[in-house]
Amino acid sequence: MANSAAPLARLIELFERLPGIGNKSAQKLAFHILNMNDAQIKYFTDTITNAHEKIHRCEVCCDLTDSDKCYICSDEKRDNSTICVVENTKDVMAFERTREYNGLYHVLHGAISPMNNIGPDDITVKHLISRLSDDNIKEIIMATNPTVEGEATAMYISRLIKPLGIKVTRLAYGVPVGADLEYADEVTLTRAIEGRSEI
Amino acid sequence: MANSAAPLARLIELFERLPGIGNKSAQKLAFHILNMNDAQIKYFTDTITNAHEKIHRCEVCCDLTDSDKCYICSDEKRDNSTICVVENTKDVMAFERTREYNGLYHVLHGAISPMNNIGPDDITVKHLISRLSDDNIKEIIMATNPTVEGEATAMYISRLIKPLGIKVTRLAYGVPVGADLEYADEVTLTRAIEGRSEI
Repeated sequence: MANSAAPLARLIELFERLPGIGNKSAQKLAFHILNMNDAQIKYFTDTITNAHEKIHRCEVCCDLTDSDKCYICSDEKRDNSTICVVENTKDVMAFERTREYNGLYHVLHGAISPMNNIGPDDITVKHLISRLSDDNIKEIIMATNPTVEGEATAMYISRLIKPLGIKVTRLAYGVPVGADLEYADEVTLTRAIEGRSEI
Repeated sequence: MANSAAPLARLIELFERLPGIGNKSAQKLAFHILNMNDAQIKYFTDTITNAHEKIHRCEVCCDLTDSDKCYICSDEKRDNSTICVVENTKDVMAFERTREYNGLYHVLHGAISPMNNIGPDDITVKHLISRLSDDNIKEIIMATNPTVEGEATAMYISRLIKPLGIKVTRLAYGVPVGADLEYADEVTLTRAIEGRSEI
């Protein structure tokens, strides 16, 4: 980037390296930053530093939190007999937005993927198994992504859990609500037919 | 955003407020930040603070720079008889990428827009006029955006400059190179016909 102001060029480059940000967006962000006042800049950089310093994994469910136990694990009103196993924090947020699920979570922080050299020890499987010594737990809902890696992870974990006598379930497959059947792929449609229920 | 980790919620919100960043992108950026190591975070925040502190307007052309005079105004090889008047720094970058223009610039930092309460005194028009006392200057190229505001600004400035006996030109209008005529709007096509040249 030919530009007189090296700090500006570095700023644009900084944003360009972020995921999903192209050259034009990086320029837009850089000029947005330059137009902020001193207090806004301080808030911007402090929020980043602060989040980075304070956020770590919940000692129970491995979700991200700034205290020892996350707000879900600390909430005594939640049903602690059910654990929903997800790949990452964004999935927890997605389930929480439904306001329907009242159990606990376990965040794997990834999925088993031999292609990317990610084995069971690289995600929080052991931690999950150690939680199962609690007699309260009646059901584990496998809610990993419906991808090859997510499926493999769900299968792997369910095989570890079943011998313990705990019920293991999987999210229902089917056509997404509001979607157009015309655009549904064959596998999804097949699963939707297989999983059909009486009305 | 229901989330245990207030610093994380604040971080996502911070990115959501940036231009062109939606909720999903903000989440993606926030988790990208959390996955950085301490050195990367320091570089990230330092680059932002540094750019914000050091960048100001060039005392000659009002482009953004971190020294008194920007690298274009300081370059003695540039043709100082021509000034290309643009709305903002991004336009300077766009012209510089062509590697064709060798004159100087003047950055208005906006365009006259009565709708948005932006008058001639809110952009660097006076500063531009003060530069014209230099006898070297032979031509002013108006390169404001081809929008209503850009046009009005170009007209306003050209009326101020013409009495000084300096040539004022405007960028050529026409169909963009590589574009499909089918999608060109009527005004552009009309201008392209009006501006046709012999081959």
